[in-house]
Amino acid sequence: MELLDVLQWRYATKKMDPARAVPQDKVDRIVEAARLAPTSSGLQPFEVIVVTNPDVRARIREVAWNQAQVTDGSHLLVFAAWDDYTAERINAMFDYTNEVRGFRNEGWENYRNMLLGSYPQRGAEVNFQHAARQAYIGFGAALIAAAAEQVDSTPMEGFQPEAVDEILGLRARGLRSVTLLPLGYRQPEGDWLVNLEKVRRPREQFVTEVR
Amino acid sequence: MELLDVLQWRYATKKMDPARAVPQDKVDRIVEAARLAPTSSGLQPFEVIVVTNPDVRARIREVAWNQAQVTDGSHLLVFAAWDDYTAERINAMFDYTNEVRGFRNEGWENYRNMLLGSYPQRGAEVNFQHAARQAYIGFGAALIAAAAEQVDSTPMEGFQPEAVDEILGLRARGLRSVTLLPLGYRQPEGDWLVNLEKVRRPREQFVTEVR
Repeated sequence: MELLDVLQWRYATKKMDPARAVPQDKVDRIVEAARLAPTSSGLQPFEVIVVTNPDVRARIREVAWNQAQVTDGSHLLVFAAWDDYTAERINAMFDYTNEVRGFRNEGWENYRNMLLGSYPQRGAEVNFQHAARQAYIGFGAALIAAAAEQVDSTPMEGFQPEAVDEILGLRARGLRSVTLLPLGYRQPEGDWLVNLEKVRRPREQFVTEVR
Repeated sequence: MELLDVLQWRYATKKMDPARAVPQDKVDRIVEAARLAPTSSGLQPFEVIVVTNPDVRARIREVAWNQAQVTDGSHLLVFAAWDDYTAERINAMFDYTNEVRGFRNEGWENYRNMLLGSYPQRGAEVNFQHAARQAYIGFGAALIAAAAEQVDSTPMEGFQPEAVDEILGLRARGLRSVTLLPLGYRQPEGDWLVNLEKVRRPREQFVTEVR
């Protein structure tokens, strides 16, 4: 299926079939798309938590406006951004890059020092907001990957991030939840949204050309 | 090409061939992917500016750390987020949705009123940050679409947003630039990055499973 067809096919699934589970190999490819997504300076300042445990998902549903997809889907992906860019985190990524590539590059080391001299000093909140934006690139990649696998998903911001952080113990790991992506299969008979036309602003209100 | 292969193939192209232009139909499909991307409440709080004009791109390059892709590529996509969620913007999207679908839905109208009762009062900066995150979903969709078209692109945050806003007259339109995406074709002989291995944290440092 072509990418644009994939994007037309997907929709924010409101009702999933609790009897159908997404196969593990599909989940793995969806998460892999998020892992391969580009991020600013390649720092990948986020992680993905894959929740299948029913009790944990039931607790998350309680702090996510009781949205049924959280428990009716078979997997819940939680995108959690770094709470800050620290020197340790920056160095870990640059050191790992040198290890993988097997050499040190002067330009790359200068770039490391530039980041070390600016990011940690900007303050945690600025850095978290920056990291959260990067997580959205991976979030976008994952939801496209889900559709490419013919897996339904629901991009969700409607939840209490602090409560999800608490349930999953994220703050102790330096993470803050930013989005949820339940994965499953649509149950069309229970979904008011499934047969409605997808609505997007027309191209002329979305695109400007500067020739 | 499978999505994961597309993500493996792409890289942040540092040197593009100024002699090769991306065909218009490919550019159109790349922009269309951004238009079809999901956003919070379907508000699509961003626009895409497609800059081909050489003088305008030369001016943007000056405020983008002189990065050559801005002028060596054939098209520059500027992702610009709404500077605020106003009642007018929220109503425009809900009215348009009703027009496309041909009916009014009580739940949908209640949802409109819930947004009208909360978003405009949150303050412009909170709303801009929220809109910017949505733009990153479309940005992710566009860079994946570019790769699917075998078009090279460079996701870029390294520029002065206020200066780009000024060059393109964005603030008068209620927009603020958030990312750039030059499109073109790699010129491997001039690109230090093209032959380096793509580096991503290993899966076990990126994914946690809660079973």
